[in-house]
Amino acid sequence: MAPKGCCASICQCFFEYSTPKILIIRSFKVGTLNRITQALVIAYVIGYVCVLNKGYQDTDAVLSSVTTKVKGIALTNTSDLGLRIWDVADYIIPPQEESSFFVLTNLLITLNQTQSHCPEVPKTGFDCTSDRDCKAGSRDTRGNGVQTGKCVRYSAVDKTCEVLAWCPLELDKEPPNPPMLADAENFTVLIKNSIRYPKFNFNKRNILPYVNKTYLEQCVFNRITDPDCPIFRLKDMVTEANEDFQTMAVHGGVMGVQIRWECDLDMPSSWCVPRYTFRRLDNKDPVNNVAPGYNFRFAKYYKNGNNEETRTLIKGFGIRFDVMVFGQVTVVCDWIVLTCMTKKNIYNEQKYSYVDDFQLLSNETP
Amino acid sequence: MAPKGCCASICQCFFEYSTPKILIIRSFKVGTLNRITQALVIAYVIGYVCVLNKGYQDTDAVLSSVTTKVKGIALTNTSDLGLRIWDVADYIIPPQEESSFFVLTNLLITLNQTQSHCPEVPKTGFDCTSDRDCKAGSRDTRGNGVQTGKCVRYSAVDKTCEVLAWCPLELDKEPPNPPMLADAENFTVLIKNSIRYPKFNFNKRNILPYVNKTYLEQCVFNRITDPDCPIFRLKDMVTEANEDFQTMAVHGGVMGVQIRWECDLDMPSSWCVPRYTFRRLDNKDPVNNVAPGYNFRFAKYYKNGNNEETRTLIKGFGIRFDVMVFGQVTVVCDWIVLTCMTKKNIYNEQKYSYVDDFQLLSNETP
Amino acid sequence: MAPKGCCASICQCFFEYSTPKILIIRSFKVGTLNRITQALVIAYVIGYVCVLNKGYQDTDAVLSSVTTKVKGIALTNTSDLGLRIWDVADYIIPPQEESSFFVLTNLLITLNQTQSHCPEVPKTGFDCTSDRDCKAGSRDTRGNGVQTGKCVRYSAVDKTCEVLAWCPLELDKEPPNPPMLADAENFTVLIKNSIRYPKFNFNKRNILPYVNKTYLEQCVFNRITDPDCPIFRLKDMVTEANEDFQTMAVHGGVMGVQIRWECDLDMPSSWCVPRYTFRRLDNKDPVNNVAPGYNFRFAKYYKNGNNEETRTLIKGFGIRFDVMVFGQVTVVCDWIVLTCMTKKNIYNEQKYSYVDDFQLLSNETP
Repeated sequence: MAPKGCCASICQCFFEYSTPKILIIRSFKVGTLNRITQALVIAYVIGYVCVLNKGYQDTDAVLSSVTTKVKGIALTNTSDLGLRIWDVADYIIPPQEESSFFVLTNLLITLNQTQSHCPEVPKTGFDCTSDRDCKAGSRDTRGNGVQTGKCVRYSAVDKTCEVLAWCPLELDKEPPNPPMLADAENFTVLIKNSIRYPKFNFNKRNILPYVNKTYLEQCVFNRITDPDCPIFRLKDMVTEANEDFQTMAVHGGVMGVQIRWECDLDMPSSWCVPRYTFRRLDNKDPVNNVAPGYNFRFAKYYKNGNNEETRTLIKGFGIRFDVMVFGQVTVVCDWIVLTCMTKKNIYNEQKYSYVDDFQLLSNETP
Repeated sequence: MAPKGCCASICQCFFEYSTPKILIIRSFKVGTLNRITQALVIAYVIGYVCVLNKGYQDTDAVLSSVTTKVKGIALTNTSDLGLRIWDVADYIIPPQEESSFFVLTNLLITLNQTQSHCPEVPKTGFDCTSDRDCKAGSRDTRGNGVQTGKCVRYSAVDKTCEVLAWCPLELDKEPPNPPMLADAENFTVLIKNSIRYPKFNFNKRNILPYVNKTYLEQCVFNRITDPDCPIFRLKDMVTEANEDFQTMAVHGGVMGVQIRWECDLDMPSSWCVPRYTFRRLDNKDPVNNVAPGYNFRFAKYYKNGNNEETRTLIKGFGIRFDVMVFGQVTVVCDWIVLTCMTKKNIYNEQKYSYVDDFQLLSNETP
Repeated sequence: MAPKGCCASICQCFFEYSTPKILIIRSFKVGTLNRITQALVIAYVIGYVCVLNKGYQDTDAVLSSVTTKVKGIALTNTSDLGLRIWDVADYIIPPQEESSFFVLTNLLITLNQTQSHCPEVPKTGFDCTSDRDCKAGSRDTRGNGVQTGKCVRYSAVDKTCEVLAWCPLELDKEPPNPPMLADAENFTVLIKNSIRYPKFNFNKRNILPYVNKTYLEQCVFNRITDPDCPIFRLKDMVTEANEDFQTMAVHGGVMGVQIRWECDLDMPSSWCVPRYTFRRLDNKDPVNNVAPGYNFRFAKYYKNGNNEETRTLIKGFGIRFDVMVFGQVTVVCDWIVLTCMTKKNIYNEQKYSYVDDFQLLSNETP
């Protein structure tokens, strides 16, 4: 083509359209072959991928149930409570949850609270010199009760506003260190996990077939020696997450127990075993350690002789273990691979059929 | 082509097969180039997409932990209880849950129940005129106990079947309006959320680095002034969901607190901040408002002087806040975009290489 | 082509490159048509699929809330407790959970426990003949307390190590059969489920519009007669999972209640109804039935006359019902189908445009 101005050539290039030269073969054999191939592909995509596999549903197809049972005894010795035993009914709160459990490891206890009047805990906003500093009925979210309007003596040095509250008030102090239930590190937990792929009618539990009652009564999980024992020592779990149990126990925290089922359902189901990993979930950033750990308040309610309600308030620090089960992946993955592979073959067939076309063609055109 | 019958032409068209004319280039340069390109694509798809990225696993890769802590005091004044303070240990039931918390806002209380005999609450099926109308041992699911077979006087006008139950029975009445714990609207909740993408070893919490203790002690979430404060006023959350707190508090309900982490991990992690949205989850359809709200019964158990068990039954109405964390999306999205982009480039390369082919071709064919 | 050595021909084949013969059409009409088509496709993919649809986000778009309310009365008659009524506040533990509920069906009760000394339960490791066999301070995870070092008489025949514990200790025995709360099979549960697709601003609850208060008060779910009644009899749920309620009630277990919302949002929303399925989630493998069922311990705490804490320990066996809501699928599916279809059309257009090209071509080349 003759040389032109740049602009012209670009413009020309823009309005240029390149299309493959098409050879039309009028042949019963080839035509049929072509249509059949097309039919095959369509049938495959619609029938197999969409109808049969429903691959996009697999992700919600896995069903899992988790139950946990903690065992262990802790002994505490405090001025308030004296020598006291803590068993599972005392330190698991609430007694049952869907897929997590909380173990009490440390606590601040306030005994014999009753609904009455007492001076607020000294804190900016609650200090006072005379009643004028206190507003009757004011309820500060940082406070422990509703102010009566009186200014009363809290200690030799302090005067604070009087409140209607559960008295005596909880003292705002740091949790004991070492933690009160330091023994908790030796508690063990049996985690029972059953999974099911309804579509494949596949069931499995983390208590493997060969595990018998006697083994289960004395085994403790250990990556090397007992990788299939579903009983875990709390300290081991925390240690695997590169945390120190006693340190974590002081302010509490959240641990993640991951159970992974990566089963190839085409393989013998005995190959399908759970893998356990442990992680600390709540952030304990040394740089910004505002509001660390995990704690909450709960109370035990009593009625004393003259039918008056009293309670024991407990600020409980502890470790919550969230059990998370992963298993869908496998199925989805299976499906993806399967699909791609099969598709690939069919595409190949097509490719070959093209090749055939040329042969047929060459036969037909003398 | 000569004119034919319609049917014939269709048939012909059906058995027609069109294929591009193929030009076979026998050239070391071109061939190599071609194979290399193919190898590149295959290597990319297998190696990068499948092995490295494992995109299909990203969805289960995000780990999140949520802990909540409610603060606030409510004051009630009823004939049953007199002046009474409600603090967190009283109105959070159960004291801890995995990723939700329930705040008691309204209640019907039945004091000093004991296991004894009393007349059923008047209701169709429980009214009677003589013992003949009552069937000993019958336990109606709508009833409160097991019938003794006696027909006793409930009030001046009513006679009902006697039951063995926790007596006195709870009266079947509407919850108080305004709600008893109307003060709950001023309660605040600190929501601590830590997320982690193990694969990317990326950690983040919703208490942002610059948030310090003093700020955290007095801040309250506000879209405009304090968008990063993780402390929320209950009323604000409900209002953002276009609901009226006091109305919702009467019969209770369920609120959803969504925390979205849409982080591009290629960007500085300081850009990765949570977005909070609030929605009412339980339906309050004005047209069909059958069984509205959320309530449940629980009891506090006591033993009186002569070691007899008594309990206080509470029908608690309140708002359950379900905290939901979304974060996987980002990663999956990243992956999708990334993949598409990279693919596109490679496809482009291919496209160019085709172009090259033609140039090479033109050089080769004098 | 002339016959050659095998190796040579393979090598040749390897360096062979086949490309379609390209016909370049220089035509304003055709070029423009071509560019427009390309623009269309690009616009569609970027604009519609990515920006508008955000298909990959749909999976986290569904919001669901579940609340449950159990009704029913059970009567037990034991030597410990005498004739006793159990109502919802007694047998639902904890009183509220996010999306599951536990119904107590069987129990072992230990009354009036106090912190004191008593002989361990006879078990290998706890039997002794003299104090030398007992180690003061030793706390075995299988034990119930901390050993005092004394060896005391447990029964006429047995001597065991004395422990500091909640005494008297719970006897290690099988749960009663038939289960104590056999009546639980007639309990009913109202399951309220609301779903929402925020993106489509679509709300729906499982209490369908036509269901009114009177119907809801007396209906019980039945696949044939009452498929839309959200009130389920516990026994029916267990039976649908091909389990026997009374058998399951003895040791307890975990049931899965699946609610499927498979709604085509293009159809009238009245077609969008939930489907309920019930499955037993925990494995009850007859071959390997180690640690069967589901149970946990909890306690009720009292204070006796002289302000000493006593408790009633209950080892509770029961059935936990986990409610699982599936609904995302539909949306994702919609989106997939939608996308593919639309793409297909556009591709078709392209195909046609190619065909047109040829016609245009034939017009242009006389």
